[in-house]
Parts: sequence; structure tokens; C-alpha cells
Amino acid sequence: MSHSSSLEREGSSTELEIEKIITDIARSSRDSSRALAKASTSAKNGSLIAMADGLLKESDYILEENKKDLEGLDTTNLTGAYLDRLTLTPQRIDAMADGLREVAALGDPVGEVLRMWKRPNGLLVGKMRIPLGVVGIIYEARPNVTADAAGICVKAGNSVILRGGSDSIRSNRAIGEILRGALESFDIPADAVNIVPITDRVAVTYMLKLEDYIDLIIPRGGEGLIRFVSENSRIPVLKHYKGVCHVFVDESADLKTALEISVNAKVQRPGVCNAMETLLVHRNISRSFLPLVIAKLREEGVELRGCEHTTQIDPDVVPATEQDWYEEYLDLILSIKVVESIDDAVRHIEKYGTMHTESIVTSDYSNSQKFLNSVNSSTVMVNASTRFSDGFELGLGAEIGISTSKLHAFGPMGVEELTSTKFIIYGQGQVRN
Amino acid sequence: MSHSSSLEREGSSTELEIEKIITDIARSSRDSSRALAKASTSAKNGSLIAMADGLLKESDYILEENKKDLEGLDTTNLTGAYLDRLTLTPQRIDAMADGLREVAALGDPVGEVLRMWKRPNGLLVGKMRIPLGVVGIIYEARPNVTADAAGICVKAGNSVILRGGSDSIRSNRAIGEILRGALESFDIPADAVNIVPITDRVAVTYMLKLEDYIDLIIPRGGEGLIRFVSENSRIPVLKHYKGVCHVFVDESADLKTALEISVNAKVQRPGVCNAMETLLVHRNISRSFLPLVIAKLREEGVELRGCEHTTQIDPDVVPATEQDWYEEYLDLILSIKVVESIDDAVRHIEKYGTMHTESIVTSDYSNSQKFLNSVNSSTVMVNASTRFSDGFELGLGAEIGISTSKLHAFGPMGVEELTSTKFIIYGQGQVRN
Repeated sequence: MSHSSSLEREGSSTELEIEKIITDIARSSRDSSRALAKASTSAKNGSLIAMADGLLKESDYILEENKKDLEGLDTTNLTGAYLDRLTLTPQRIDAMADGLREVAALGDPVGEVLRMWKRPNGLLVGKMRIPLGVVGIIYEARPNVTADAAGICVKAGNSVILRGGSDSIRSNRAIGEILRGALESFDIPADAVNIVPITDRVAVTYMLKLEDYIDLIIPRGGEGLIRFVSENSRIPVLKHYKGVCHVFVDESADLKTALEISVNAKVQRPGVCNAMETLLVHRNISRSFLPLVIAKLREEGVELRGCEHTTQIDPDVVPATEQDWYEEYLDLILSIKVVESIDDAVRHIEKYGTMHTESIVTSDYSNSQKFLNSVNSSTVMVNASTRFSDGFELGLGAEIGISTSKLHAFGPMGVEELTSTKFIIYGQGQVRN
Repeated sequence: MSHSSSLEREGSSTELEIEKIITDIARSSRDSSRALAKASTSAKNGSLIAMADGLLKESDYILEENKKDLEGLDTTNLTGAYLDRLTLTPQRIDAMADGLREVAALGDPVGEVLRMWKRPNGLLVGKMRIPLGVVGIIYEARPNVTADAAGICVKAGNSVILRGGSDSIRSNRAIGEILRGALESFDIPADAVNIVPITDRVAVTYMLKLEDYIDLIIPRGGEGLIRFVSENSRIPVLKHYKGVCHVFVDESADLKTALEISVNAKVQRPGVCNAMETLLVHRNISRSFLPLVIAKLREEGVELRGCEHTTQIDPDVVPATEQDWYEEYLDLILSIKVVESIDDAVRHIEKYGTMHTESIVTSDYSNSQKFLNSVNSSTVMVNASTRFSDGFELGLGAEIGISTSKLHAFGPMGVEELTSTKFIIYGQGQVRN
């Protein structure tokens, strides 16, 4: 037998082993999810608090394992920002613990009956929230996702399968051990939280095919990871590609409010998905508003790229290309466009936007309603900064991601968005004619 | 150039043409969906009523086209039931028209605000229902689906792409023409309802890849069609494989109620997904209840397959195999199992059930609650026949399908389930710190 054929056999046998390991994990997750679905609110909350306590108590151990992860890396091609995301500190462990306590303090969505109605034949029909079942999280560097995502999933009664990147595998396993121990101390199966021990990407490929065991996949990471997951998954995927968010300053806007919101939306934290990328300004106030906002943005170090009208008002603004209107800069760069009307602004958003977050600044009642009703992005605002578009700021308590696809959940997702509903019916012996 | 290579080129050119036609349809559907999303309730309802009027007025034309469909068929391998599903009659056209009028009479889900809450910084945050966008329906023989599905989609503000089977293409096109004309008379773009003119299956394959234009795919037909669609789709699919529904007769059940519900759930219409397939009976009442229900079911012509305990009580019951507990008979056949407890019943449902519909017959308060809370099928009932599990009977008004996957919608789906929600925010100039 040739060397290459023997290698092939070895390869396929390893892949078979990986498939078996992943399938076993998924099956045990499904089985555990049934016990977790029936767990009491106090058992779930108790285990979340025990998780927080455990992380603090074992922080030396977690930091040691994180150090081993970092020491094992070939850092030649890694950026400082990437290494920063990988690195755990006592402060970051505190933040994970705080996050788990906050999730424990939220209301339990499971078992909540949304509404009930009575049918002419006397049947009382309602919709009751139930867990989704098993959620798979596929993520990259950040080891804090292990605790954050597990906490939200457990609260909503879901088992979670956590498949982090190879660069943080030791950290993830250390955190996972603590989370699993906390579940067991409240008689919830440890397998309600599973850490995938295999860092080979083929493990992800197998995971994405286990539609009989896993109900939802949430990829968290760069666009490449998200595309890979959504193209290879047979399981529904909740994804978030990017956020090209707009602020539209209407002709009736209060200029001071418009200035504050525009600057805040751009500069308060430019590297995140809910930062403004394009400013739309009504032509009728462009000559009064643009000089103000341009001066202030320049002061904040923002590079400006404008439409023809904008560059006429301020010749130092770089002319924007067609591509600029599609761009998610995630940086101190802003494109500016003067529009003819609110309808023109809505058309621009429909063409170039990503359905993430848009805000109108206006003093006109009818335009506020028109914008709220005709823009179908996941978050639509009147007179507020786009930076409020996240789970915590909207009052969801904790966020597992922001969905830009409209199926199941649209926009920031909290514990409620990790549930489904079943119909419940109270009858008195009714049969169908 | 060889004959075969010329054929290949012709083949691939045709596929390219098909891809272009499908992509153009999807793009025009997406564009029309934006206009439809903003359409007033009265325009949508007016067009639905005009559709109903149009179907009646043009019924001769529809029947003629349907006749051409039927005449063109090679009926050698077609069953009578299949031909019946293909055939339109004046009564069936009346039923389509009635269905559209009923959908017009439903409340408009679009723009409904589910709830609003206030944040500490004064932001008023709410969730508003919005259309999904574009819905693709992939179906087989029944031409009535063309009108039924289009009506529900339009009501929820969604464009619809209807891809029916080749055997009913003329009927579907005739119905589609009438629906489109009705939309135009209310200034809604005709392309909000598109009939795919290509019957080649490759058209479906292309359609399933257009995730940028189509938001949801609903396959309606046999298990083969549904599996093909869900394995090939990049777009979320709402699917319904099968319904193995259970009735559990608890030890505290009123025997008369249990008898009526069991018989109704099995025999009232055995060929549908919400009919009972397995009867679970508590051991403590098996000797009193089983003889009653077996006699009555036999009288109704039901073939019975039972567990060992059941065959001991009635030796004429055929012994059930392991496979029987998984079976969706869709026929006058029933499997019967005696269980030790309510927990045993729940375990049986978890193992063999399909998460469709289950009912408990009981007089015990605590067991009714236990069953409602621990069984997470899409519809869970107390003291009612499983046959009530459909959109009309539950009060949803009209149904586009029954989802057995928990993402987005679970159970019977009406117009509300064809919507998503966006967050809306009323601010007074808030910026983020």
C-alpha cells in the first residue's frame, strides 16, 4: 500500500472520529436541553450566580490557562488588537462575572404566556414562551464570549455548544469547566454547556449539519467566519454582516440637537456597528447646518467625504465615490450627502443601507411618523443617536448579537429572542365537527 | 465542433437564461415589496377583495386554462388523488374567493406596536411589526395555493414569488394574471405577486440561492420536495415534515371525554397532520378504558396496533413494532401504548414525537399544568381533540402552513407569523455617554 493511500486512510479515520465527537456532544446537548427546559427559575438563576462566583474564585487558574494560550501562539502575523481581544485580565474576569449576575437578575422568559384568547367553541388558546432547545455559538478570539453567551442561553432555557477559536482553547475550557460545575451544583446537567474541544475547522462543518440536534447557530466574528457559517449550515443562522447607519437631518431639525446627535453617532465609538457612517442633510438647511457640523467633526479628527453639493459648501471635503455610500468605515471617516427631501433620504437608505439603524433629526410631527413607518431597518429612531442601538441601551438587559436578517429576530437580541412560543389550549372536552 | 459540445453549450446558455429570468423576478419582487410595505390597509384590503371578484368574474377563463393543463398530462403514472388536487371546479374557485375575502377581513398586522417601554434616559422604545419582505412559495399540484398564499402574503405586506408545479402552470398563470391586475387597480405594483413561468427544477435551485432578494421560503408539498428545498436553500425555510400526534389519557380522565376525544382525533379526518397517530393510556385505567375505546375505534374501521399490555387486554390487537411508534399513518390505523405515569407519557412523546400536537385528557389540575409546561410541541392541549391544531381553528384567521421548526414561528402560521418587528425609538435629542 502506498504512503499516500495510507495517509488518506488515516485522514478519513480522524475525520470520522471528529464527526463522532461532535455528534456525541450535540446529542448530549439536546438531551440536557430537555432537563434545562424544565429547570426552575431559581435553579437557573442560582447556577448563573454560582458561575459568577466560580469565575472570581478560580480567576488565577483562568489567567494561567489564558497565559498558556498566549505563550503557544506564533505572533508573527497577529495584530496587537487581536492579541488584546485574546488576553484576559482580572478586570475582564470581573466583567464576565458581573454580566452573569445581570442575566440572573432578568425576568425568566420561559413559561410566560404572551396572550390568551377564547374561541367560539370555548377553547382558551394562548402562546407560551419555550426555549429554542440547543444553540451553537461559533466565535473567534474573545474568551469572554464563553461566559457571556452561555449565561444568556441558560437563562432562556437553552443548552449551548460553544466552539471558540483554537487560539483561546485553553481559556475557553477553563471557563467552561467552572460554568459546568455551577450547573451541576443546581442539579442541571453539566452538558447544558458544552465546549467543543476540537479546533480543526472540520469540526464546525460537522456541527453545521446536525439539524436534528441543534436549533440555532450564532456566528460571532468577522465577515469571513459569518459567510462560511451561513453558506455551510443546514441549521438556521442568526447573522449580522455589517452596519452602515444613517442620520438624516430634516429641514425642520433643531440645529443644536442635530449637531450633538451627528457628532455623538460618529465619534463616541467609531469602531462599532451602530456608529453613523453616512450623514444625510436636507438641502434647505445644508448651508446653515453643514458648516457647523463639518467644523465640529474636523475638530474631532473625522475625515469627511461629501457629495457635490457638500464639496461646494466646503471645498476641503474630499469628493465621495459611489463606493463610499456602501462603506462601513468603522473609523473616524464620514460620508455626507445632501438630499432633496425625506423621500430622497429614505430612498438613499433603502439603496445603500444595511437595515441596521437609522435616525431622523426633526421637529416635524408628520416627518417623524413618516420616517418611523417607512424605514424598515432593525432600529429606527427619532431625535436620538444611533449609538443607542444595542441590547443593553434598549433595555433588553443583555445581548447575544444583533440580527440583520428579519427571520425570527431583527435587531438586538436578548433572552426573549432566544425563545420560541408554543400554542397552549385549555379545553373542556371539545371535539371537531 | 461536435454535436455533444454544441448541445452542452445550448444547455448552459439555457441555464444562464433561466438564472437571469429568476434573478429579474426576484429583484422586481424585492423592489415591489418596498412599495407594498408602505401600502395603506385599505389599498391592501381593496386589492384582496378585487382579487376575489376577479377570480369569480374570470372563472370560465381559469377553468379553460386548467382544462388545458389536465389535457396536456401523461396520466399513465398519476393517481386519481393527484389528478383531483390538480382539478379546479367552480366550487373550488368560489372557495379561493371566499378565502381572499376572509383574509381581507383580518386586522392589518403591519405597523402594530407590540409594546413600548421607557428607558431611564427618557428614550421611549417599542417594537413595531413590519413585513418580512419577499416570500417564496414552492408548491406542487394544487392551483388554489396560488390565490391562498398570495392573499396571506399581501395582507402581511410581503411580495410573493409563486413557483408551482409544471402540471398546473397554465392554471397558476391565469390566476396570477387576475391577482396582479387587482393589485394594479389599487396602485400596488403588480410584481408584488410573481408567478415563476419556468417549470424546470433548476429554476427552484436558482431561486433558493437569492438570499439578497428573498427573505423566506415556504415549501408546500411532499416530504421529498421539502427535503430538497431545505437542503439546497441559502434562504431561511419554514418547513413542516410530519405530525405524529399523541393523545394521553391520564388515570384521572373522565372516560366519556377521553373516548370522544380519542375517536375524534383519529377518525374525523385521518389523512391530515393533526390527526392522532398514537394513543397513550395510563396503566391504572387501561383495563376500564381500553376495551371501550378499542370497541368504538373498531366500529369506525380503525386498524389497531398495541404494546404488550394492550394485546393482553385485547388479543385481537396486532402487536406494534418499534417502528410503529415513529409512524405517521395518515390513515385509519392507530398505535396504542400503556404507560406507567405522566412522566412516562412525556418521555414517549419526546422520543417518538415530531413536536406537532399533543393532548392530555385529565381531571387533575396538577397534571394538566405539568403536561402543558413539560411538553414542548408546537401545540399542547388539555381536554381537546388534536384536530383543533390549525390556523383557522386557533383563531389565526388563515394559515400559510404549520412550522415544526422552532425558529421564527412554531406551529400554525397566520399573517402575524409572516411579519418581523423593528425597534422604534422616540427621543428628545439623547446622545450616548
